[in-house]
Formats: sequence, structure tokens, C-alpha cells
Amino acid sequence: MASRGELLYPEDDRVFLEPYLPVLNRQSTDSGIPFVTLTFATSLDSALSLAPGVQTALSGPQSKAMTHYLRCRHDAIMVGVGTAVADNPSLNCRIQGVGGYGGEGLNGQPRPVVVDPQGRWQLTSETKILNLARQGRGKAPWIVTAKTPSAENAKLLEEVGGCYIVLGSQAQMSEGKTSIAWLDILRTIKETGIESIMIEGGGVIINSLLSVENADLINSVIVTIAPTWLGQGGVVVSPPRSEGSSLPVARLQRTKWQQLGDDVVLCGTLKA
Amino acid sequence: MASRGELLYPEDDRVFLEPYLPVLNRQSTDSGIPFVTLTFATSLDSALSLAPGVQTALSGPQSKAMTHYLRCRHDAIMVGVGTAVADNPSLNCRIQGVGGYGGEGLNGQPRPVVVDPQGRWQLTSETKILNLARQGRGKAPWIVTAKTPSAENAKLLEEVGGCYIVLGSQAQMSEGKTSIAWLDILRTIKETGIESIMIEGGGVIINSLLSVENADLINSVIVTIAPTWLGQGGVVVSPPRSEGSSLPVARLQRTKWQQLGDDVVLCGTLKA
Repeated sequence: MASRGELLYPEDDRVFLEPYLPVLNRQSTDSGIPFVTLTFATSLDSALSLAPGVQTALSGPQSKAMTHYLRCRHDAIMVGVGTAVADNPSLNCRIQGVGGYGGEGLNGQPRPVVVDPQGRWQLTSETKILNLARQGRGKAPWIVTAKTPSAENAKLLEEVGGCYIVLGSQAQMSEGKTSIAWLDILRTIKETGIESIMIEGGGVIINSLLSVENADLINSVIVTIAPTWLGQGGVVVSPPRSEGSSLPVARLQRTKWQQLGDDVVLCGTLKA
Repeated sequence: MASRGELLYPEDDRVFLEPYLPVLNRQSTDSGIPFVTLTFATSLDSALSLAPGVQTALSGPQSKAMTHYLRCRHDAIMVGVGTAVADNPSLNCRIQGVGGYGGEGLNGQPRPVVVDPQGRWQLTSETKILNLARQGRGKAPWIVTAKTPSAENAKLLEEVGGCYIVLGSQAQMSEGKTSIAWLDILRTIKETGIESIMIEGGGVIINSLLSVENADLINSVIVTIAPTWLGQGGVVVSPPRSEGSSLPVARLQRTKWQQLGDDVVLCGTLKA
């Protein structure tokens, strides 16, 4: 049986995901950006959580194991600073057999990337992601920012082998819902050798990526939906409409819905 | 092939619905209210439509046929006045073989019931539901209200064999999101011999029924979800939270998710 928090995700449940994942060991393409998978879990009323900053258990154990399996299938995983601050997330992969969980070195561990345009995230000795890197159970994080990091933060990050990626285009990197310079970020990440990235949240990031101007950057979308209504006041996924538009913002193609425990997993593509 | 707008819904696709439907030809129970199925279609961001009063094509042809099949499995179907005014709906069943669509008389046609507390719905010669009743393609509607109907409306309704059901408890029947006197309405409907009712919308009705104080009245929930995000500004299903509560409002039990075309159909129960 799995130990140390190791998770098992059965082979049979991997099959339906395969058409939506980056091809294993694929050669670098010349698209200039990595293969991007957008993945998150919501309630039936499209809420990620009950309220801003409130971690909310939504999906069941099978869906959780699936998320960790997806992580080992990407070179990097990304969250926004809001999620980093609110959840103090681990952002590693705990599928049995990856590095730190029964496997060698850091095999199968994705690179955690936090998007923190304004440098809001204060690292401390309690920051889980740093501790996991120290323990050899996850890769050291990269933080994408438009601000010069504080000396204290930089020291904590570099001690575990992480780094800041400082982008110049500060004006375009505010946390406003549609003003994150995704193309700049993804190009820069690709230049480091990252061929695939799974973007996990939170609400600001997801709504920004699903908006009309950014949806073309996404290869696959994998959404878990739990059969619950969180009710009015939650943090919801609902992308902004284009100025003056009364059309739906986005529609998935090649959809596959798969029940997993009480939840459903929806896979689809956004690019035309 | 189907004519006159007749719809086909294959036997194979009926099986997964059966555990969530009222038992065929069942005897009246002593619960005092009919078997209640709540059913509706949303986008991934839980929207029923792009904006109030805007009819929005969400689900595919298979899901539409399913809805008509569900209608023939209930004695009555119900919508709120908002939907009646905005959509001028047919509220009949067009599954091949029911009365008016290849079958005898009005066999299999559900009784349309419109909840119109304040008497907002002005009937005219263009009102589809009246014309269908006139043509023998649907039962005559009942309108549940707390106001004395206008002579003109009453005449139009009675001409086709419909009627108003005037409830006394006007104070409790405002259209406020949680203040519809559901128990009164459902008891009154049961007294007329209706053993099962499918409630279809719109947003005010659905959010009211999913709220904590009413959820116990519902036997089954059948939700169709289309793989699209309508974006911010839609009419959303997201029930109000109880005063001061920070818990999820409702969770479905015995869930079954079934892909139907590009959409998914979620079936579940709300009663403990």
C-alpha cells in the first residue's frame, strides 16, 4: 500500500486522458510556447472555493489522484500568487513511483512555477514548496514576476535551488483579469527548456486564460466537477466577455466526459 | 423518420435515467406532494442564458430529445413566469408516439403549469402553449397565482380548457428568491391528482428550490451541462446560502454522469 502520502492512480483511468496530454518524450516544437494544459476543479455552480482565500474540498480522492498523475505528465505546473498565498500549496507530484515517492531523484516531478506580477508572495521557513525541495520531494520553484524581488525572498528561494524570472513588461503584468502577458510568460518558460506546462489556478489565472484573447494559447482543458452547489459568494470560473460581445466566451471541442467517483472529469480542446 | 417536429430518444439512452424517474403507474403515495424532478441545462459557468430574457441554445440535439422524453415521464411540467414571458415556451412533449405526435389523444402529454405569483403573464393569441392546446398537441396550461387574474387572461385560458389556481398566501408567494411557498403549491397540485412533476426553470425557481429550506421537496435532479463558458453576466444557477452559513448549499447523492453528444447529463438525488 502507498506510504508517505503516496497516491495511486489506476492504469485503467489513464486511458481517457491520453488524447489530451502532451506526447511523452516529444521533440521540441517550434510553436514558441510549451504545450499548455489548463486544469481545475469546480462545483456545479462553477466555484473554485467558498470565498477568496478559503480552501474548499470539492473533488473526491480519485480526482485528487488524477491531478497528481497529470502533474507527472508535464514538465512544469503553474499557479497564480493568490493561490500560493491562500493555500501554501505543495505543487509537487505524489504519485507512487515518482522521485521522492518511491522513485529515483526527482524523476517525474514537475517544475513548480508561481506567477506573482507584483511580488506579493512572502517566502518563509513555513513555505511548503521550499521545504519539499529541501527534502528532495519536489523541484525548486520558479517565480515569475515583474518586480525586483526582496533580498530575503531571493535568498530563501536560491537556497533550495529556485529562482526568480523577472519579466520587463510590468505594465502588462498587472493581476487584472485579462492583462497578464501570457505570451511573454510562456515564451520565457519555453526558452528554459520546458516543453509542457499544466496551469492549475486560481480564479484570476483561469478566467484570464479562458478569455477570448488568450484561449488560443491553451492546448487542453481538463476540468473536474463535483456534484455540489457552493452557493452565491464563491470564487467562480466565468471568463470576462469581450467588450460589447453577447456571444459565449469559449467552447470546448473534442469533449470527453468521464465519471470518476462522484465527480466528472471533462476533457476538451480550445484551439480551433 | 420523425415528422411534424417529432423527436426520437433511443431506448439505450433511457436506461441511465430510470433510477431517477417516478415509477410508472405507481399508486399515489401519502407524502402529500408529487414526486418532484428538477431539471435544467447550464453552461460550465452554471449559466442558463447569456442574459435575462435571452434564449440561449446550450445543449445539443440529444439532450433536447432527452428533455422531451423526461416530460412524457411526468404528469406535469412547471416553469416560472420569467421563463414563460421570455421564451413563450411550448411546454409540451414532442417524443414520437405521444398524443399529437403520432399517438392517441393527449397520451403522454404532461400538464403545463406556470408559477406566476404576481399575475405578470399576459396571454395573447400568440401564446404558443394555448395554440398547442387548441391543436390537440399539448394539454391546456394551469397557472398558479396569488392574484385575481384579469378577465381577458381568464377567458383565453378557459377557452382552451386551462385554469388558474389561485392560492391565498400571497405574502409568501412573492418572486423573491426564497419566498415562494413551494409546499403550498405542490400540495395543491397533488390534490388535483398530479403524482409527478418536472420543474424546468428558470433561474429564480431553480435557485429557490435548491436552497436549504426547499431542497427536501425534490426527489431527483437531472442537469445537462454543455461544454461552453457563457462568461460573466449570465443568468446563473447558484442557490443562496443560509444566513451566516459558510457551508456548501447542496450536494447530490447517488450521482450518475452520462455523456450525451458533447454534453453531460448529471442525475442525482437531494433528499437524505
